[in-house]
Amino acid sequence: MPPTITAFAQSPDRGRGLARDMGVRWALEEVGQPYDVRLVTFAEMKEPAHLALQPFGQIPTYEEGELGLFESGAIVLHIAERHAGLLPDEPDARSRAVAWMFAALATVQPPIVELGMAMILERDQPWYEARQPMLQDRVRQRLDQLSARLGHAEWLDGAFSAGDLMMVVVLRRLMNSGLLQEYPKIEAYVARGEARPAFKRAFDAQLAVFSASSAS
Amino acid sequence: MPPTITAFAQSPDRGRGLARDMGVRWALEEVGQPYDVRLVTFAEMKEPAHLALQPFGQIPTYEEGELGLFESGAIVLHIAERHAGLLPDEPDARSRAVAWMFAALATVQPPIVELGMAMILERDQPWYEARQPMLQDRVRQRLDQLSARLGHAEWLDGAFSAGDLMMVVVLRRLMNSGLLQEYPKIEAYVARGEARPAFKRAFDAQLAVFSASSAS
Ligand SMILES: N[C@@H](CCC(=O)N[C@@H](CS)C(=O)NCC(=O)O)C(=O)O
Ligand SMILES: N[C@@H](CCC(=O)N[C@@H](CS)C(=O)NCC(=O)O)C(=O)O
Repeated sequence: MPPTITAFAQSPDRGRGLARDMGVRWALEEVGQPYDVRLVTFAEMKEPAHLALQPFGQIPTYEEGELGLFESGAIVLHIAERHAGLLPDEPDARSRAVAWMFAALATVQPPIVELGMAMILERDQPWYEARQPMLQDRVRQRLDQLSARLGHAEWLDGAFSAGDLMMVVVLRRLMNSGLLQEYPKIEAYVARGEARPAFKRAFDAQLAVFSASSAS
Repeated sequence: MPPTITAFAQSPDRGRGLARDMGVRWALEEVGQPYDVRLVTFAEMKEPAHLALQPFGQIPTYEEGELGLFESGAIVLHIAERHAGLLPDEPDARSRAVAWMFAALATVQPPIVELGMAMILERDQPWYEARQPMLQDRVRQRLDQLSARLGHAEWLDGAFSAGDLMMVVVLRRLMNSGLLQEYPKIEAYVARGEARPAFKRAFDAQLAVFSASSAS
């Protein structure tokens, strides 16, 4: 039995691959693990059955035999630890790749999500325009530091790893912000991630859900 | 040679254990691993030597032989994987404990940090008061869900794990917000964490840095 993940039945991003199932799908494609997808509506995500699997009422989840997991970072790490291809063998390099996963989710992602949340939740507030430069500068601070570290390297720490996968997934949330274009090295890094065949297969799979649901 | 971590030379929280070295110290105490501490000033954190170790110019870092690590979550996981006491042996339970680490850092922490950042950065802005209820409600949403999952259990998933350690560390940032008091189960959970002898040793160690620097 292949593992089963959950994803949005109705994709709010119109299939641009910004929902958190994208990283999990990408990881599964990188390691060549087939998977099933169970689509859940917004209402279903808040019901007891889903909350038992995901206490915060979100997607994605991951079910494999007796195991139920949540948090895209934890799911990607679980996959990466059980298959070759997403973590180096050398123990120190492996710990550093995991550090980049945490950096993506705990350091780079928060100001990116705040910028996005303000656009959705505070667009009509009188302070919206005044706060924008501050929110953008908080993102720029992380992009400055990330770009400085990356330099002209292909990936963050040697070979492509789950750390790069998580970082590219997080950075893609900036696609419509205009900010990525200020950082050519980061833009090229994201493009390298998107050019991987496994990324493309994962992207097409999540897009197919949107195409099907928008056609119906 | 014991591992070396970095911590603030001048503790901005006056030794209340809210800086991110706290979780790392606590993990090291739980597993009984002695460690050295290198104190860094704010200026030193932004210099090339520190940036080579921590690309975002922050504490904590972790050095052990050839390995240099950053991100408190990654450091705690590294420690937990190499010593008994912070992760269950059973593989599925182990993955679930790691999921709680990611939940603490990627799901529960962001709205808590936003509330704290607004207090520091936006206190004098005309919109400060108007935004407070929204920021508090974003935190409450996570506390509601966490409290519902925790119920009357002692820890999040069976025995105390690195997932509980990370969650308690994150929740302690709310200590002066008044919000924890609305959630008696969560308050009791945090108190259980703080009552652990390893927590107390870690807390005393970080407090000693503040006491020494404020005396000088
Ligand atoms: N930290 C979680 C975040 C999950 C998350 O934000 N999921 C979003 C979709 S991308 C969701 O389900 N949102 C619906 C909601 O929160 O009600 C993870 O990485 O898995
Ligand atoms: N996600 C990082 C956050 C580290 C962090 O925020 N460190 C703070 C102290 S608690 C810091 O060094 N702040 C100084 C700065 O950012 O300039 C981790 O968990 O290690």
